[in-house]
Amino acid sequence: MEYSKLVTGMRRNLKSKIMKTYDVIIIGGGPAAIVTGMTIKRFFKGKSVLMIKEEADGLVPCGIPYIFYLLANDSEKNKMGPKPFVDLGGEVIVGKAAKVDKEEKVVSIESGDLFGYDKLVFATGSLPVVPTFIPGYDLQNVFYMKKSFPYIHNLASQINRFKNVVTVGGGFIGAEVAEQLSAAGANVTLIESEPLCFSRAFSPELSSIATEALKGTKMKVLTSALVKEIVGENGTVQQVMLADGSRIDADAVILSIGYTANSKLAKEAGIELNRYGDIHVDHYGRTTAKDVCAVGDCAQTYGFLTGRSDVIKLASTATAEARTLGHNLFGIRIKKCTAGTLGVFSTEIDGLAMAASGANDKNAREWGVDLISAKFSSPDRHPGSLPGVSNLTVKLYASPVDGSILGGEAWGGKSVGEIINVISLAIQKSVTVFELVSFQVGTHPLLTASPVNNPIIRAAEEIVYKMTS
Amino acid sequence: MEYSKLVTGMRRNLKSKIMKTYDVIIIGGGPAAIVTGMTIKRFFKGKSVLMIKEEADGLVPCGIPYIFYLLANDSEKNKMGPKPFVDLGGEVIVGKAAKVDKEEKVVSIESGDLFGYDKLVFATGSLPVVPTFIPGYDLQNVFYMKKSFPYIHNLASQINRFKNVVTVGGGFIGAEVAEQLSAAGANVTLIESEPLCFSRAFSPELSSIATEALKGTKMKVLTSALVKEIVGENGTVQQVMLADGSRIDADAVILSIGYTANSKLAKEAGIELNRYGDIHVDHYGRTTAKDVCAVGDCAQTYGFLTGRSDVIKLASTATAEARTLGHNLFGIRIKKCTAGTLGVFSTEIDGLAMAASGANDKNAREWGVDLISAKFSSPDRHPGSLPGVSNLTVKLYASPVDGSILGGEAWGGKSVGEIINVISLAIQKSVTVFELVSFQVGTHPLLTASPVNNPIIRAAEEIVYKMTS
Repeated sequence: MEYSKLVTGMRRNLKSKIMKTYDVIIIGGGPAAIVTGMTIKRFFKGKSVLMIKEEADGLVPCGIPYIFYLLANDSEKNKMGPKPFVDLGGEVIVGKAAKVDKEEKVVSIESGDLFGYDKLVFATGSLPVVPTFIPGYDLQNVFYMKKSFPYIHNLASQINRFKNVVTVGGGFIGAEVAEQLSAAGANVTLIESEPLCFSRAFSPELSSIATEALKGTKMKVLTSALVKEIVGENGTVQQVMLADGSRIDADAVILSIGYTANSKLAKEAGIELNRYGDIHVDHYGRTTAKDVCAVGDCAQTYGFLTGRSDVIKLASTATAEARTLGHNLFGIRIKKCTAGTLGVFSTEIDGLAMAASGANDKNAREWGVDLISAKFSSPDRHPGSLPGVSNLTVKLYASPVDGSILGGEAWGGKSVGEIINVISLAIQKSVTVFELVSFQVGTHPLLTASPVNNPIIRAAEEIVYKMTS
Repeated sequence: MEYSKLVTGMRRNLKSKIMKTYDVIIIGGGPAAIVTGMTIKRFFKGKSVLMIKEEADGLVPCGIPYIFYLLANDSEKNKMGPKPFVDLGGEVIVGKAAKVDKEEKVVSIESGDLFGYDKLVFATGSLPVVPTFIPGYDLQNVFYMKKSFPYIHNLASQINRFKNVVTVGGGFIGAEVAEQLSAAGANVTLIESEPLCFSRAFSPELSSIATEALKGTKMKVLTSALVKEIVGENGTVQQVMLADGSRIDADAVILSIGYTANSKLAKEAGIELNRYGDIHVDHYGRTTAKDVCAVGDCAQTYGFLTGRSDVIKLASTATAEARTLGHNLFGIRIKKCTAGTLGVFSTEIDGLAMAASGANDKNAREWGVDLISAKFSSPDRHPGSLPGVSNLTVKLYASPVDGSILGGEAWGGKSVGEIINVISLAIQKSVTVFELVSFQVGTHPLLTASPVNNPIIRAAEEIVYKMTS
């Protein structure tokens, strides 16, 4: 038989088993998957979209730490599912995608069912880094911050049993989990290998403030501390041993030392990954394989400033990418407003809100970016004698050449959560410090700083001062 | 004697009496005056600047309503003075500027002292509208929201004596004063002539929400109600009579029906005013007279959208104009980033924060601006089960031609105060709804809405939907 006929025969054979062919199949069920599906169903109503997700219930990823205290260990309160996508007419199958045939455009799920697609979207997310090089990493009561509802639900249901908890990793999730467990009454020790917590996202100044905030709680914070071994007895964790030989009693250990792309399925399908293991995509989420896209934590990001591939895994950037992909999956209709991913980070520790966007004096050095910076502090109400006042600080980073805003940080009360978005928009639109001098803002005694002392404007003015005097 | 010699002789005579000549004289002591002075002293250190202000103590203008409840009638807590200007080397004289001779470049103050200037800045602010057409407008215990520390201090010191208080005017100051007095225990009736409160700043939808919020407090709110007479006995207010003949008992009446420019001194000096009585200025605050500028409430504004003269009197716009003037007083160094004044309004009534910026469906009709709008609501925390959550709504108004954001409104919790500034920056930078689709924001469970449901992005997407489907 001729080769071409043989292949045709195989295809017919495969096709006959396909349950249904969709315009779009999305593999995954997190924020990137949901927003991709919602966007497609909202803007291309006629397209059939199937979401294949592993677990029936999902959760708000950034909400995980708050299950343990503010949500009273009730993980049901942190559930997030694909309902908004289904409400728009999307279909969902709970099952594990086992194989992708990108030539035949077919996804097999573990049950054996096959589904055809015209466009395929990987939104498979990320998995916690498991440090297999640390002895004891797999003992009983060693936990990882998996974005899995049943896993976290199980952890929450037993967390009150643990008196001494060691959390490893002083990034956002690790520190927030530590803070929440400490608030809930556990005897918590947070271990961070760097001299300061949050140092991957925040400048040294803000990292230092954040680390002090953590140290101001009831928990114990050990920085520049390396875990050498997790020591157990009868298969259950007992202690954490540090590189300096000291030992910390632990009924439970929570490891939160980062996430890596869940890109195994894509790799097996012959989709190109980058050197970090992220699925290689262009600025619209398209992989190098025809009609295959990827979005969210499993996909590559390009640094906003550098334009080169970096690793930013945030629900916020994932949803922005998902919208870009959703609108442009069938042809580029709405150009993406930036050519890169802007990391915008925020947290609240012990009542102190902190946020950062784009460049700071640490990452700029790594990226080779020239910066000029200034900061300004003011009460976040006016007059400052009003109840509920916090001191608000804004630090701006700008190009010393043209004064365009390249980054910013803010810390203080809860308004920080949106102030960083004013700064983020300024970064994305290349607003300059010279423009911010005459920026018109809304102010109100109960809601904001005084118009005389708007910290964004005043920090921008200080950069103007440095640039012009 | 020749005429020129005569004039020279007069000049010599005048000059001999001048106590000192300054590079800049600022008349006024409010936010516009302070920021103008601070900006000049910060950026042109060598320039001598004199501020002539009428009263030794000033106050935070927007903070006035909060004196009566949140600040416990302690007006000292709402003080604002020129200290930051003085700290930078500015000089202050307390006195009333009685006359300006713009030919001789001299300001006379009531004490008789004369001061020379190279540049003169009017920052004389605004005065409450006094409705002399309403009989009884000047009775004892009829008050006006004067931005005067001694006047407000005096009112605060006796406010607890008044059981029945009628406040007239449902704009920001009027409604906020009414809300605060009501919270403090007074029996308050708010009278507004329009069918809805806040209708000059908010859309009909938000005006309606705001009016309902006022009605939800203990105060009584009468809309579409006109004051016909303020009735007194022995010269003291007793009742307010409405156009429909009904009467409301009143121990005190607070009139807050708007402000007009305090431009009498400028007019007497021969400076051109516009038809609203505001000092005519260009986009940099320069009047039609050489070396004479004006800024803040006493000066003309140009509508951001229309480019024609309108009347916006806010401390926030005043300070933006003051910065523009301060940087450019000695020559244009930093171009103003917009050619108009953007009104950004915010308030909080009974715990509901509300804000508006730029166009809405009401003012756009008046301005002849074509609009398309959409709104989106989401909890302002994620998951929405977290403590402290409020429902947040964002309504955006965009050009149906190019999708650029022309206005926005937000209401919900306190984050509204900065969300309106994200929108305001978008308006000022002509950001489009198409750009907002891929806008990258920071989100955090305790600080913001979910990234899936960021209300600014989702409202922008709905406008995209309307424009493209």
